[in-house]
Amino acid sequence: MYLTQSLSRAVMVNPNGVATIFRDRVRTWSQCAERIRRLASGLTARGVGKGDRVAILALNSDRYFELMFAAPAIGAIIVPINTRLAPPEIDYILKDSGARMLLLDTTFAPMLSRLTELDAVQDVVFLDDGAVPDGLCPYESLLADDAPLPEVAGHDDVAGIFYTGGTTGRSKGVMLTHRNLVSNAIMVVTAFGYRPDSVYIHSGPMFHLADGASTYAVTMIAATHVFIPRFDPLDLLGEIQRTKVTNALLVPTMAAAVANHPDVGKYDTSTWRICAYGASPMPEAVLQKIKTVLPTVKFIHAYGMTEAAPLVTTSDMHKEPEGERFKSCGRVGLLVEVKVADANDVEVPRGTVGEVLVRGPNVMLGYWNQPEVTQAALRGGWYHSGDGAYMDDEGYLYIVDRLKDMIISGGENIYSAEVESAISTLPGVAEVAVIGIPDEKWGETVHAVVVPRAGHALTVDEVVAHCRTLIAGYKCPRSVEIREAPLPISGAGKVLKGPLREPFWSGREKRVA
Amino acid sequence: MYLTQSLSRAVMVNPNGVATIFRDRVRTWSQCAERIRRLASGLTARGVGKGDRVAILALNSDRYFELMFAAPAIGAIIVPINTRLAPPEIDYILKDSGARMLLLDTTFAPMLSRLTELDAVQDVVFLDDGAVPDGLCPYESLLADDAPLPEVAGHDDVAGIFYTGGTTGRSKGVMLTHRNLVSNAIMVVTAFGYRPDSVYIHSGPMFHLADGASTYAVTMIAATHVFIPRFDPLDLLGEIQRTKVTNALLVPTMAAAVANHPDVGKYDTSTWRICAYGASPMPEAVLQKIKTVLPTVKFIHAYGMTEAAPLVTTSDMHKEPEGERFKSCGRVGLLVEVKVADANDVEVPRGTVGEVLVRGPNVMLGYWNQPEVTQAALRGGWYHSGDGAYMDDEGYLYIVDRLKDMIISGGENIYSAEVESAISTLPGVAEVAVIGIPDEKWGETVHAVVVPRAGHALTVDEVVAHCRTLIAGYKCPRSVEIREAPLPISGAGKVLKGPLREPFWSGREKRVA
Repeated sequence: MYLTQSLSRAVMVNPNGVATIFRDRVRTWSQCAERIRRLASGLTARGVGKGDRVAILALNSDRYFELMFAAPAIGAIIVPINTRLAPPEIDYILKDSGARMLLLDTTFAPMLSRLTELDAVQDVVFLDDGAVPDGLCPYESLLADDAPLPEVAGHDDVAGIFYTGGTTGRSKGVMLTHRNLVSNAIMVVTAFGYRPDSVYIHSGPMFHLADGASTYAVTMIAATHVFIPRFDPLDLLGEIQRTKVTNALLVPTMAAAVANHPDVGKYDTSTWRICAYGASPMPEAVLQKIKTVLPTVKFIHAYGMTEAAPLVTTSDMHKEPEGERFKSCGRVGLLVEVKVADANDVEVPRGTVGEVLVRGPNVMLGYWNQPEVTQAALRGGWYHSGDGAYMDDEGYLYIVDRLKDMIISGGENIYSAEVESAISTLPGVAEVAVIGIPDEKWGETVHAVVVPRAGHALTVDEVVAHCRTLIAGYKCPRSVEIREAPLPISGAGKVLKGPLREPFWSGREKRVA
Repeated sequence: MYLTQSLSRAVMVNPNGVATIFRDRVRTWSQCAERIRRLASGLTARGVGKGDRVAILALNSDRYFELMFAAPAIGAIIVPINTRLAPPEIDYILKDSGARMLLLDTTFAPMLSRLTELDAVQDVVFLDDGAVPDGLCPYESLLADDAPLPEVAGHDDVAGIFYTGGTTGRSKGVMLTHRNLVSNAIMVVTAFGYRPDSVYIHSGPMFHLADGASTYAVTMIAATHVFIPRFDPLDLLGEIQRTKVTNALLVPTMAAAVANHPDVGKYDTSTWRICAYGASPMPEAVLQKIKTVLPTVKFIHAYGMTEAAPLVTTSDMHKEPEGERFKSCGRVGLLVEVKVADANDVEVPRGTVGEVLVRGPNVMLGYWNQPEVTQAALRGGWYHSGDGAYMDDEGYLYIVDRLKDMIISGGENIYSAEVESAISTLPGVAEVAVIGIPDEKWGETVHAVVVPRAGHALTVDEVVAHCRTLIAGYKCPRSVEIREAPLPISGAGKVLKGPLREPFWSGREKRVA
């Protein structure tokens, strides 16, 4: 169970079938695999060896895809970086991962000036065609002579490090092995209904495993990948029509943007069979709208997390759940175990809320360079998700709360601690608490409650502007309350967020979107 | 990846769905899992522990199914015995495996008298209801109190030993681990199109992994198992109608028996969607007949071997191959690697015949107590199948020859060496060679060429009758040639079978059925 076996299989069974479509670049599996082999040779020639980290900071493309196979093929480790992060966050990941090489595209060329100071990356490859910035290796010239890939990597070797936010404000690198990613891929094939004739569009960001899962699953079944650089409703609709897409994955905010677009009816989307979604349930209004404007599409609600590579549960594609069940995030995948447990890791009865624990061949090896955090997260052999949920009598899981102090907005995980940490560096801030509040469009949005130091005046704009220099735009507060009174504090001196959240969530059945 | 995870999952997602149907015994997944837990407790109470072998010699039933999960759940090893073997062959397996316990049903009660002499099994459990032979434990009373199954077995612990014939005349026990069987099961789910609403009928023998694969795969997806004791066309058709079967697995001779049965049209088989088959290609005439009398059924040709747990290739269920392709045994499964190689294990070009080598998480740990044979079979990390095949440009595999001296008759593997060894114990036999010859009904049949010692007269009946006392009926020769001239011999003194086979196979494109 190592990643390149899927690639070899694809070439074996479908050499002349279309592997990748990125605008006018169309390649067969045979051509695609040759390029991956040449890229693997090129990486080796530039000194990338077993265990070395290769980071990538780029919008979606077929070249991104090639790297996702080429680096693990030679035993190296891919580090796909969230493109929406702020410069200090990107710098942290480059240093923490100790990346030897970085691949970036035009969009991120401005960060080049920082790289020299950062002293974090030895070698930078430029992904786009055209003018190449000084000192960078152009991607196409990185491709070396074709040579067979080396024999089997270790199944339990790390194939990728995927950074997520951190509960303590420090981003964590999730180490996933070949076996983790392959186990996940085969579950994705069964859960999302991939077939040899499927056409999957990468419309979500490829650095995120929600999409990355299909990078590996679609290859496993030798179907077709289509790429758009970033989510855009019209680009998506246009490519669905042009390339006859059958499968996509969208978070509810993306699905809403597609369904509500005034031009949605102008495109032929009749080949589109399945839309997986996750992060939060699909709002009823969006669902109804989609059923009208995209009648061929069946929905699959998926739930997971980077630590599980990522799939944990999915709704059943053979019998799309209805009514209340549609709000469930589905049932456990074929190779995974889920236990809804109390604080002592003892299973609670069906219908009772507990923490979601996950075990299986898809669960991460651990967090990069963070053995203590790893041990805590994987205690007793189960991954502790921090999600509060109950399971009904037929195994449908309902996420109702979040034990981790995390906000999910438009499909992105935002750890309150990261936002609080950013705000607290602003002079004049005495106390800060960041919470998620419900929002019709984004599911949840970030709300900050800030108490100024005595004698300091703080404005909302000032708080937001300060955040923008430190953290990704999507993590910055959408609303800020400047409050004079001290924050409610527990006996242990911790801010009590319950009372802060309550006014926003009261009258709802759940405390998450 | 251990077997009971599938069972826990089935109870989690489908507690009230039907798990097993055997005549009028119908049980839900919740009831079925409880019985398996009680059986596991009962085995433990009778002293069966981790690593102990538990053999079963019985026709198909729901109780057979229960054992296939209960023994591995406590770390014990199941040893399902081929019900068609002759007494000396069964005795060999009981002794070789060192089985601590044996479960048998009425059909095999006559062997009880031998067990005491054999000194091979400490504990015998009787699977049927009604009168229990003296000293045996009735199955239902073996079921003890319900208790949770023990925590996770080792993924790479042996879960079962499945005996196959031996090239040297000695039967080999194939050790398959939890991971082997689970990896195979998830490939079977994808390859045979199992869905949560599938109903699979165990019509082939459960001791054989062609069926055993579905024991685990159908459970993984929490669908329904139906059992008939043994293959019988009318029983099969009746149960398909009564229980609304969707999936079955038949070897071509069975499929022919169903399609050609005069009463086939009297049954409602409209729920039957998929029929997997293997061992040999479906003859064109049978195929055409089935398409007429069973128009809802789609065919999936599968190829594998016990050593691969067993699935290696399958034809594509989303696009049933036509014409010549229908004779192919399909393309490689999602997690498996196949290499068609020359005598030095170097891959040969497409279209060239070589030996089929197999690698993957489904490939056996090795042969029980036969480290040298294991090392030879798994040399270089690949399982050497002994099957000669070529692969076409799109990865379809065609088996054309057999490097091992084996005959496949009616779906059963028969090693010539075992038959030769039986015949040679008959006084008056000077030389013997056993070959497979083509047969319209059975694919191949066993043909023996026997040279008597000088001064001895041998008759055909005598040879066959002698074989019947030593080996399974299906292994006994269907035809015998008594020949006075010595057999053709190689320079190394080995019988040359090519010249013996040639008259029977000439004019055909392949040297196997």
